Amino acid sequence: MAQERKIKPKKTPIISGSDVSDVSKRGWVIKEKKNHLQDLAASSPITIEHVSPQISAGRFAVKREVGDTMEVWANIFKDGHDLLKAVILVRYADSDEWWEAPMYEINHGLALWGGDLWFGDNRRYIYTIEAWVDEFGTWRDGTIKKLEAGQNVVLELVEGADIVRKTLERLKKTTDVRDPDARKRDIAFLTDVLKAFDASNDEYECADMLLNDEVLEAMDRWPDREQATRYDRELEVFVDRERAPFGAWYEMDVRSQGTEPGVHGTFKDAEARLPEIKEMGFDVVYLMPIHPIGHTHRKGKNNSLVCEPWDVGSPYAIGSEEGGHKAIHPQLGTMDDFRSFVRRAQELEMEVALDIAIQCSPDHPWIKEHPEWFTFRPDGTIKYAENPPKKYQDIVNVDFYGPESDAMWMELRDIFMFWANEGIRIFRVDNPHTKSVPFWEWVIREVQTVYPDTIFLAEAFTRPPMMQMLAKIGFSQSYSYFAWRESRHDLEEYFNELIHSEMREYFRPNLFPTTPDIMPFYLHDAPRSAFIIRYILAATLSPSYGMLNGYELCENDGIYGREEFNNSEKYEIKTRDWNAEGNIKDLIATINWIRGENFALQLYENLRFYTSENDNIMFYGKMTENRDNMIFVAISLDPYHGQAGRIWFPTEEMGVSFGGRFWVEELLSGREFEVRGNELWVNLYPAGNQAEIYRVTPIDRAS
Amino acid sequence: MAQERKIKPKKTPIISGSDVSDVSKRGWVIKEKKNHLQDLAASSPITIEHVSPQISAGRFAVKREVGDTMEVWANIFKDGHDLLKAVILVRYADSDEWWEAPMYEINHGLALWGGDLWFGDNRRYIYTIEAWVDEFGTWRDGTIKKLEAGQNVVLELVEGADIVRKTLERLKKTTDVRDPDARKRDIAFLTDVLKAFDASNDEYECADMLLNDEVLEAMDRWPDREQATRYDRELEVFVDRERAPFGAWYEMDVRSQGTEPGVHGTFKDAEARLPEIKEMGFDVVYLMPIHPIGHTHRKGKNNSLVCEPWDVGSPYAIGSEEGGHKAIHPQLGTMDDFRSFVRRAQELEMEVALDIAIQCSPDHPWIKEHPEWFTFRPDGTIKYAENPPKKYQDIVNVDFYGPESDAMWMELRDIFMFWANEGIRIFRVDNPHTKSVPFWEWVIREVQTVYPDTIFLAEAFTRPPMMQMLAKIGFSQSYSYFAWRESRHDLEEYFNELIHSEMREYFRPNLFPTTPDIMPFYLHDAPRSAFIIRYILAATLSPSYGMLNGYELCENDGIYGREEFNNSEKYEIKTRDWNAEGNIKDLIATINWIRGENFALQLYENLRFYTSENDNIMFYGKMTENRDNMIFVAISLDPYHGQAGRIWFPTEEMGVSFGGRFWVEELLSGREFEVRGNELWVNLYPAGNQAEIYRVTPIDRAS
Repeated sequence: MAQERKIKPKKTPIISGSDVSDVSKRGWVIKEKKNHLQDLAASSPITIEHVSPQISAGRFAVKREVGDTMEVWANIFKDGHDLLKAVILVRYADSDEWWEAPMYEINHGLALWGGDLWFGDNRRYIYTIEAWVDEFGTWRDGTIKKLEAGQNVVLELVEGADIVRKTLERLKKTTDVRDPDARKRDIAFLTDVLKAFDASNDEYECADMLLNDEVLEAMDRWPDREQATRYDRELEVFVDRERAPFGAWYEMDVRSQGTEPGVHGTFKDAEARLPEIKEMGFDVVYLMPIHPIGHTHRKGKNNSLVCEPWDVGSPYAIGSEEGGHKAIHPQLGTMDDFRSFVRRAQELEMEVALDIAIQCSPDHPWIKEHPEWFTFRPDGTIKYAENPPKKYQDIVNVDFYGPESDAMWMELRDIFMFWANEGIRIFRVDNPHTKSVPFWEWVIREVQTVYPDTIFLAEAFTRPPMMQMLAKIGFSQSYSYFAWRESRHDLEEYFNELIHSEMREYFRPNLFPTTPDIMPFYLHDAPRSAFIIRYILAATLSPSYGMLNGYELCENDGIYGREEFNNSEKYEIKTRDWNAEGNIKDLIATINWIRGENFALQLYENLRFYTSENDNIMFYGKMTENRDNMIFVAISLDPYHGQAGRIWFPTEEMGVSFGGRFWVEELLSGREFEVRGNELWVNLYPAGNQAEIYRVTPIDRAS
Repeated sequence: MAQERKIKPKKTPIISGSDVSDVSKRGWVIKEKKNHLQDLAASSPITIEHVSPQISAGRFAVKREVGDTMEVWANIFKDGHDLLKAVILVRYADSDEWWEAPMYEINHGLALWGGDLWFGDNRRYIYTIEAWVDEFGTWRDGTIKKLEAGQNVVLELVEGADIVRKTLERLKKTTDVRDPDARKRDIAFLTDVLKAFDASNDEYECADMLLNDEVLEAMDRWPDREQATRYDRELEVFVDRERAPFGAWYEMDVRSQGTEPGVHGTFKDAEARLPEIKEMGFDVVYLMPIHPIGHTHRKGKNNSLVCEPWDVGSPYAIGSEEGGHKAIHPQLGTMDDFRSFVRRAQELEMEVALDIAIQCSPDHPWIKEHPEWFTFRPDGTIKYAENPPKKYQDIVNVDFYGPESDAMWMELRDIFMFWANEGIRIFRVDNPHTKSVPFWEWVIREVQTVYPDTIFLAEAFTRPPMMQMLAKIGFSQSYSYFAWRESRHDLEEYFNELIHSEMREYFRPNLFPTTPDIMPFYLHDAPRSAFIIRYILAATLSPSYGMLNGYELCENDGIYGREEFNNSEKYEIKTRDWNAEGNIKDLIATINWIRGENFALQLYENLRFYTSENDNIMFYGKMTENRDNMIFVAISLDPYHGQAGRIWFPTEEMGVSFGGRFWVEELLSGREFEVRGNELWVNLYPAGNQAEIYRVTPIDRAS
């Protein structure tokens, strides 16, 4: 990381007068005036406030990625006219050693300071701010102004020399060993300056001695920070690896990867499919639960309460005599088969993600081994899951807050540790919002302490505050409302909220057009073009997106009036012809290739919506900060009719001179052309180009 | 105050999992997994967040007034489907005894809860929130749904009876003595219910026994709050008396109240003017500093460095051989004269406000008595105030952070205490932004602990973050940028910011069109109409406003190119003919009478700007919440030309039916008329009606 200097941790108390706990303390301190006076007299005259980024007054960690530069902002000010200096202090969460990076006053009128932190490692960082009065700088500034006004500054020069003398004394005594060479050099240099100063009687000569740049630089190297003000909060940043913000996920149930109709698929079958998935350009292969499936109250096809002997059950009813969350469903194969699958994926430079659903079938081994983790009813039966009047009799929930929950939390943590130890570093967590939030905060932190490269995706479709809370307490990624945002207005509004609110600091959406639980009405009986549209939206609006297997075949069979798949593979074996006519695998491969080639599409917060005159055509873009990669997408949201109209490029943002030209490569068709001005006519039609993706390069650059 | 119940303070630790200090703690707790697990396992599953109002994560007190109802909002939610209950807990800052007020879930989808607190006393309050799982309610709700779905609920009934039994046991053992009668009654009642329940074998009969309203009410009276979640912050509210938000101030220098030209005015002269000031309708008479004025480096007329023997000096150069901040300038009279003046003002139901400027002339007694409070230069001279290259040689500043500052802070506090003891409860503080912010926070709290009715007005014209900070740390009122907001756009933007940002919770602007230091260019050589316009704006945009003496005479003599008065009374004696031709005293009296008669104008946050087609006419209004008083102001901002145009009343907000009629009283002219629809043509001209003030009453009310 960017390190200006290494300094020893300060042992002085951190007081900038704004410790939250102060508030209650002050309630009674009022009665003890003397103490209260001392408290506040000790507090610093410098205010450091509105430090960003931070979430909920520093309660939660901000998220960043390896290689990110994070801008840190704060209001820093003091009464009167003193000049201030400030730095960002930063350390690893598990270390006491602070580094620092400089801050600069960006806007004096608003007392706004800023600085940059660069993160090089996948780990947890702590940062805060320290500011102090720049005594020498203040003196120097005032003295120069007086000189310019023709005032006598003899006394000022004596005062300035005193400041230098004081610094020199401190420098000689200091045990600070940051830069011993510079220290030695500066001691010699400042001693010489003072000697010459004391020997001279010429005001202007003396002024020149103290006001020259070398003295300023030497003095700036050794500020007196004894009285420095430390911001009263230490703020956390969790720095993830690249896959946390960027990746294309392919979701599948291993049992549906077989080739013979009606025959249960296995890890071997799934392994055989990996090259094909790689060819489509996916980064992550995410498996629905792979654990033994219960048989008590097993669900039949289409979630039926009636289970036929040949029904395979829901993989979310976890646990049987054959094991629980650390075991593999025998019909899928062995642990060795699993390992072979994972190894093959890694060879193909893909990662395997597992689906962790903390719930049990009534046959889960825990129920016998740890009945104390569950709730039993007055008749001695176990309490199954319900949302009255709905009952989920194939599922029982653990009690996260029961008297024996400590041991249970440990066991749940060990599930993640077990699979992490098998090389799995991505977990998709099923319905985390129906489990304990404090548990998630704890377990994510526990796992990431050992495996900081672990990524957690929260599969919560629930109220906004809970969605946000799960992301705040540590989930690396989150499912989103994307599946229900269809119109241009709804999409723009939702993504603007995600990107321009505080959520940008902690909530990373992973966009899935469909999931095993969600089949949006938009795709019921919908044509191929509808699938293409939703796919391109997912893959270009966010750097993280995912696709359920079968989507490439445009499977459009929804249950009438419900946002669910008909004959969902959650309850039965599927066997598909992966090369069936009408598949969109080529398009998927192209889009993933485009995502890989264009760094702008690997970023999230750079999404901006632009003007299109046709409300059925959405026009948006993403640029890198230095504009070396600029991608724009014009997409029709209408899968049934042709749509055409003008769109307007943000040529000023693009760095194109007013009325000038830029070069456009349309990446789906390979067409290339020149645009003069900022207007383009687009013609989109369902049978062919549902969208156009432009990479632009300025020809006439703004000066 | 609104008290639902009195309960004993809880001694259980306050943990909702979001203690700020946790963040740093967790850094090392990670290494001790067991402890960490216990910490979080103990934390509650209920999230309480985004509690408002609060300022800077609860660091500063919110401001309210006696009689105010404060809406408290929060997001409160938990994993799963349990029903929750929540209350606002409130106490006096100096007491341990909590009261509580109910909260209600206003919007389930947003997990938004709200409740009201009413403040009856002028003192400091603390509030927070507590929430818990409503076990019985959750059970009851689920059981009713199952019954409605025709399900068997025999087991559920047994479970419900168990909850009642548990409550009954707790009730018998409880030492909670809040309501002994209700407790006795409920014990008997619930015992009977259970007895009947146990005796019956009929499912529907049993269901009726447990699900009826009386049982619900009894159960709701005794929730189990052992596991309740307390919000992790205690939030402060300082409740001021009415004069803090509402009042008309008359500012004057006592020495300018004489009647004979060139003769120094006295308290006796000032006292003679009180009835006239009362007649104009003012509430507060605010005096520029009344202390002995220094003679060393005394300033001459117009801030001249050359002082003639007869020059009276600036009242802000405080202190001479005759005393300091607790003394009275001999030329103004004696302490008895001062007391007589204060008494006379009180008889007339006006208050006296003093101007406290913490700075000293070089002749202030402190300099000899406490040289350790000041800074001396290498040649032994005292360091005077400066802002290089500007020098203020008639002023020296105390050192707020020096080694002897404790004693000095005490002495400064005693200045406020001294005058408070003389019956003064309003202090206008000069240039607080050039003094220590921690000092202000401390001293205001100290004074208000003894005299909670004390009002502090911050005279800071500086950078926004400092303006805001002074208000946050306790100043009851603040000067504002009003004097520099002249156009409709600037005025609307500024007041919208004040009213619609977080500042509404703590920043109360007191609007002064001019001050001894500020003579805006708008009023230089300006006609009477300009003075009327700025006066009406000040008096109707904010419930607090002030006027410098001489304004009623439309004194328009500014120094060319500088926003200052020519021949300012800061440096000389003024003698005025208070009834000079062209004075606006009648208008002032009328406006103050209108302010007194119309409660809507005594409120601040109710200001709203409405549409006017002429950009030189600003149209705004204020309503009480129940719409029993609705005032609208149409004002021309052009003092030189007539302006006319349409304005549109917000008839929907006014409760007038669409296209219906309302009655209008124009309060400056006494004209009355009916309006149908929402449009009115106004014709404003400089020689007559610069503004119209409408009181409206719906005729055709919206149903």
